Amino acid sequence: MDAFTLQDGLDYASVLVFALTGALAASRSQLDVVGFIFIACLTATGGGTLRDAILNREVFWVADPVVLAVAAFAAVTVFFTAHLLESRYRALLWFDAAALSVAVPAGVAVAMAEGQGWPILLVMGMITGCMGGLLRDVVCNEVPLVLKQGELYATCALAGSLGAVLGGLAGLGHGLSLLLCAGIVFTLRAGSIALGWRLPVYRSHPPSPGAPKR
Amino acid sequence: MDAFTLQDGLDYASVLVFALTGALAASRSQLDVVGFIFIACLTATGGGTLRDAILNREVFWVADPVVLAVAAFAAVTVFFTAHLLESRYRALLWFDAAALSVAVPAGVAVAMAEGQGWPILLVMGMITGCMGGLLRDVVCNEVPLVLKQGELYATCALAGSLGAVLGGLAGLGHGLSLLLCAGIVFTLRAGSIALGWRLPVYRSHPPSPGAPKR
Amino acid sequence: MDAFTLQDGLDYASVLVFALTGALAASRSQLDVVGFIFIACLTATGGGTLRDAILNREVFWVADPVVLAVAAFAAVTVFFTAHLLESRYRALLWFDAAALSVAVPAGVAVAMAEGQGWPILLVMGMITGCMGGLLRDVVCNEVPLVLKQGELYATCALAGSLGAVLGGLAGLGHGLSLLLCAGIVFTLRAGSIALGWRLPVYRSHPPSPGAPKR
Repeated sequence: MDAFTLQDGLDYASVLVFALTGALAASRSQLDVVGFIFIACLTATGGGTLRDAILNREVFWVADPVVLAVAAFAAVTVFFTAHLLESRYRALLWFDAAALSVAVPAGVAVAMAEGQGWPILLVMGMITGCMGGLLRDVVCNEVPLVLKQGELYATCALAGSLGAVLGGLAGLGHGLSLLLCAGIVFTLRAGSIALGWRLPVYRSHPPSPGAPKR
Repeated sequence: MDAFTLQDGLDYASVLVFALTGALAASRSQLDVVGFIFIACLTATGGGTLRDAILNREVFWVADPVVLAVAAFAAVTVFFTAHLLESRYRALLWFDAAALSVAVPAGVAVAMAEGQGWPILLVMGMITGCMGGLLRDVVCNEVPLVLKQGELYATCALAGSLGAVLGGLAGLGHGLSLLLCAGIVFTLRAGSIALGWRLPVYRSHPPSPGAPKR
Repeated sequence: MDAFTLQDGLDYASVLVFALTGALAASRSQLDVVGFIFIACLTATGGGTLRDAILNREVFWVADPVVLAVAAFAAVTVFFTAHLLESRYRALLWFDAAALSVAVPAGVAVAMAEGQGWPILLVMGMITGCMGGLLRDVVCNEVPLVLKQGELYATCALAGSLGAVLGGLAGLGHGLSLLLCAGIVFTLRAGSIALGWRLPVYRSHPPSPGAPKR
């Protein structure tokens, strides 16, 4: 853990940006500054903690507590500046998209380093990407972004992880595969937020010809 | 892990049926197909993951990722066929009962294999049985089945685990004890759903003679 | 694990009192007696389980299942006596304050025993103190106490953990540092409940001179 690796960079970036989203969610619940730090840390470390617990690795922020300082710093910054934002929800949405784009490759990279096969790579990308935000939304009693109807979310994480796996198979190096992964996640998520990209959702009754639109 | 053991069978069955309930819950939230897979995997693996993490075993789906394929298959099947069901909630309820009946013995069996004492056997049965569905319901913002007033749920898991423990003490073999456990769980849960079996629930004011019914 | 240590005492006390709060929450959801035991055990062991899983220790109630009996005993007691209380919510609030005051030093003590540095001491105090109650409130669909606007909660846990760290630096012994920690947590939390002590909370628009109060 001496040299600063790509893995460290992804973990730091995902902690920083997920902490911003956690603090923005805390601002919507009007908490005090310690509440901001609490929710920011929960959001920032939730996905990676679960990943590390499942893979039986040392939890990343126990190995390197500096990530907690990063999350706390982000929380305090938001506490004092969030009122300058025009729409905190919009900021939360875009920061969350950025965080997802670094957390998914962070998860994939750890599973690669552990020598796991491709199914675990896919799952670790999804867990690391989606679980921190899911915890944030469940605790703050918001509708989880991962469940928002008609938006791509879990799909972005899955597609990105798949991109990294295929990139590896195609002979791309470690770093390039992860970059491809991040690019796919952000492109799909941004397309879904800004342009309304989506997959067909489940409908209990498939529309029949002549039926009124519901 | 070479031969297909009873433990594997219980894990597969519980993953398959819990994944069906997760996908049915996803259909009630009108997600896309990746959302179905996400909730199905969360429900199917939640209880067993917690069990394995607490007992410090390798998580069962990391050891054998085929269970993830089983859960994904169940999710996709539900995505394309759930509209054929008359009542998705009713289907969810009965699939959940079936899943509980295999997940509880799956949890007990793991604790037995780890050589744990009877209190941990009881708890592992309850955790493996109840936690996947609890995660599903919390994430999908439904009232957790385990908290549904006036229904047996945690009670079924506890009684079944107790049955396995007593069966073991009474000299029943490993397989018979687990079968007894499954039978008890399903009988009690089915009786509660279909016939209204229940334990007395807590009332803040015990009814006094002559008091009007509330 | 032969002699009864201060660590054991803190774990038992926190399990007992958190179990009471879990059972009181169960009474507000009108569950049956097994439901009381389920929620009581979840609340009582949630924080410590997470702490042990993250630190890769044997989970405390697997090592010593007697704590489960303590939680179950508390649940059954509340099931039969809660109707004697004038306000169950008020009782929940004060028991929760007492539980927080023993769970925070319990978390700090474990991190100390593992030889962790001060950032992990702070975090383990907060996790052990706050997570059990958070699980209880999320599962029972109550507003988490840790998110209650205008109350000190995470702040109490953080200040108490900080007190233990500073006490250690100042040369206080192990036991005195933990006592100081418990004292700080309870004083701050009690002051917040009874006297309305609070930190300034986030406001989206800082009040400007002459602006109407909102």
